[in-house]
Amino acid sequence: MISLITLSPEELAKKIDNTLLKPSASYGELESFCRNSIKFNFVCCVVPPWFVRRAKDILRKTGLKVATVIGFPLGYQSINTKLSEAKEAIFNGADEIDVVANISAFKSGKYDYVCEEISKLAELAHKNNVVIKVIIETSLLSQDEIIDFSKLLLNCNVDYVKTNTGFMERGVRPSDIILIKSVVGNKLKIKAAGGIRTWQDTLLYIMLGADRIGTSSGINIIKKYMEYLRRKQGINI
Amino acid sequence: MISLITLSPEELAKKIDNTLLKPSASYGELESFCRNSIKFNFVCCVVPPWFVRRAKDILRKTGLKVATVIGFPLGYQSINTKLSEAKEAIFNGADEIDVVANISAFKSGKYDYVCEEISKLAELAHKNNVVIKVIIETSLLSQDEIIDFSKLLLNCNVDYVKTNTGFMERGVRPSDIILIKSVVGNKLKIKAAGGIRTWQDTLLYIMLGADRIGTSSGINIIKKYMEYLRRKQGINI
Repeated sequence: MISLITLSPEELAKKIDNTLLKPSASYGELESFCRNSIKFNFVCCVVPPWFVRRAKDILRKTGLKVATVIGFPLGYQSINTKLSEAKEAIFNGADEIDVVANISAFKSGKYDYVCEEISKLAELAHKNNVVIKVIIETSLLSQDEIIDFSKLLLNCNVDYVKTNTGFMERGVRPSDIILIKSVVGNKLKIKAAGGIRTWQDTLLYIMLGADRIGTSSGINIIKKYMEYLRRKQGINI
Repeated sequence: MISLITLSPEELAKKIDNTLLKPSASYGELESFCRNSIKFNFVCCVVPPWFVRRAKDILRKTGLKVATVIGFPLGYQSINTKLSEAKEAIFNGADEIDVVANISAFKSGKYDYVCEEISKLAELAHKNNVVIKVIIETSLLSQDEIIDFSKLLLNCNVDYVKTNTGFMERGVRPSDIILIKSVVGNKLKIKAAGGIRTWQDTLLYIMLGADRIGTSSGINIIKKYMEYLRRKQGINI
């Protein structure tokens, strides 16, 4: 049975990858996003590749890490393109990379190809002390495929299975986490992402086994959670 | 005033980039897609980067060209990543590249950066006799921004302005073509793409000034157009 967890707002923020990945975000928006994220002390800011160096400048010495996305959001670039994108992101200061797996190759049964790509990226990441999360985009997979993809990732030396990009028809569902968790147990961490916009959903996905939550609503989630806790305290008195 | 055009199905097919870019398409689907496209003699098949070499093998000696997408669909990769993605695509046999411009940089007023990126890609493309189309993603732009972006591209040595990726909230609108055409005249060609699924829309966009139509419904469009022409002929008799 799921136990109801009680996290402080600070602990909750330390589970959240605060994210700004819309293609229309301006440089100024990205800068404010990073500055505002510092106040809430999230795990990291997830920003577009072309913005990594600037994000690193802003976040250096704050404890917040910089994450970026590779092969995002469709995942069907060549292995070389993904590797060169990751190399440059790491060179520019990325501490974590969220890579979209080649779902097209997975759907073709080319498991060796999928694993070869991810393993090469994982090797590159770990050589540079960079965390690697792999997006399997559950919205494009059947339940069996979610299980098989998670099994495959057990052999690819990655750190996290990440559920969704947030750019497809749906985001994460509770059943996605239950399925992935049933396969990876404690061997891989899980990042739930895509459509998470409330503290209730954030807590739900953590209770189900997600170690990290990706959301573009990080600040709003923490603010509303603090409001809720204040109201609850008022009621208790 | 727009004149009602009458194109033969063969002429219509020669305006169409038949496209398969969904991230879940398997290798087998991509192969059938290329083989079926040959029967209708489209201008080209637009396929994911990882599939370019195989598409080239299938389409060699057919007259159909291979096109692929660069920085797709969000456009906010680094210049180096886009260049290395384009280099590899061209090496693998791409005859045309559809590049997403850095909309984020454009929104930030970094016009020199946007143009530098596109010009470098255009230089690479033209050195290899490759056609370059640049996607400005009109769905993320105001009318003024569509005009300004089109003006900018006049100085970047590209072949086509392309309207949309098909992965954002909306596809192309008639007003997009009217705006772009008013700026680029005959200096640049126009590719209308995103949400075009009928022969009526295909004809509409051609009448408005589009030189190329990007659609994943190419085969269905030609089939239905042939049906229409047959019915029309029947009525005339």
